[in-house]
Amino acid sequence: MFQETLEINTRGRGTLDITRAIQEAVARSGTATGLCHVFVQHTSASLILCENADPDVRHDLESWFAREVPDGDPRYRHSLEGPDDMPAHIRSILTNMDLTLPVSNGRCALGAWQGVFLYEHRHGGQRRRVIVTVS
Amino acid sequence: MFQETLEINTRGRGTLDITRAIQEAVARSGTATGLCHVFVQHTSASLILCENADPDVRHDLESWFAREVPDGDPRYRHSLEGPDDMPAHIRSILTNMDLTLPVSNGRCALGAWQGVFLYEHRHGGQRRRVIVTVS
Amino acid sequence: MFQETLEINTRGRGTLDITRAIQEAVARSGTATGLCHVFVQHTSASLILCENADPDVRHDLESWFAREVPDGDPRYRHSLEGPDDMPAHIRSILTNMDLTLPVSNGRCALGAWQGVFLYEHRHGGQRRRVIVTVS
Repeated sequence: MFQETLEINTRGRGTLDITRAIQEAVARSGTATGLCHVFVQHTSASLILCENADPDVRHDLESWFAREVPDGDPRYRHSLEGPDDMPAHIRSILTNMDLTLPVSNGRCALGAWQGVFLYEHRHGGQRRRVIVTVS
Repeated sequence: MFQETLEINTRGRGTLDITRAIQEAVARSGTATGLCHVFVQHTSASLILCENADPDVRHDLESWFAREVPDGDPRYRHSLEGPDDMPAHIRSILTNMDLTLPVSNGRCALGAWQGVFLYEHRHGGQRRRVIVTVS
Repeated sequence: MFQETLEINTRGRGTLDITRAIQEAVARSGTATGLCHVFVQHTSASLILCENADPDVRHDLESWFAREVPDGDPRYRHSLEGPDDMPAHIRSILTNMDLTLPVSNGRCALGAWQGVFLYEHRHGGQRRRVIVTVS
């Protein structure tokens, strides 16, 4: 059982491609066939698998969330840290903080168009802890 | 491979903090480093990781779902068990019935603000089966 | 660690019950107690656990997504492959491409009403690769 923690600085709301960092961790684990579990230790950032070729996909995804889980909704009671606080929690729950990938031939067996992205939901950049476990 | 089933009584729609029950199962497993998989054997309750300090977060989350996946929507065909039947299925699919957590130092390595919650989506209290597997 | 790839032809947008195929893979693995991880190697199809008895549930689920993540939304920039292209990515992210199930007594320990469905989000039928890993 291999486990390590990555520390990733985000640049505010949006997606960050962490596919390479995950593949490198899997390579260090020496596992040929198994599972790679990725976990973000926060409640206002999440992990998604997303189309990795056209940046417009992540743009449109962000637009959808901005519309469906709006910042500063007057119905939110929880707004201690600002108008993006509560939406960040809802977005994280809808997109998840855990992700499990199959490992084949020593690598995460992603489809050709699949990338692993850390999705920051706060407007300000944050330092995020991501735990990678390979079994 | 450690596995056990927890039986949890819910008190109707809302979230129930099961973090302690999960941590206790992991302790019983004797696993130091690995993965903890949690699974609810139903289609109208789910498992979420959520901010664990301010109850307003779960209140606002519930408000969001009540608005976006409304009870008694006349467009639902499936309403055998009442107006909360179909929304409970949709909410469960959006928030998931499975959750996998990293285990480090004999405990689920949750972030400081992360709690594990069983999310009941039916209005009436139910007895829910939750399977915990630790590897 | 057991791993195999299933190739599944979808018939366009909608859900396909793959519970039997998953249970058969678990049986071939010979695992009595453990975890079964299912993964779709695409970004416009996903995996859900859903009520397996009344087809109206999947009908109402599809109606919900058709309304909340509409095809041909003029706000989408990414529409290379047609009006169902971007919605398929958003739907897949909301419902997930990975699913982990507990294995007990040599079978996925599903609840009585839980089925595993491959959810095709494109209008045209596609050939989808699903990787099953049992540990």
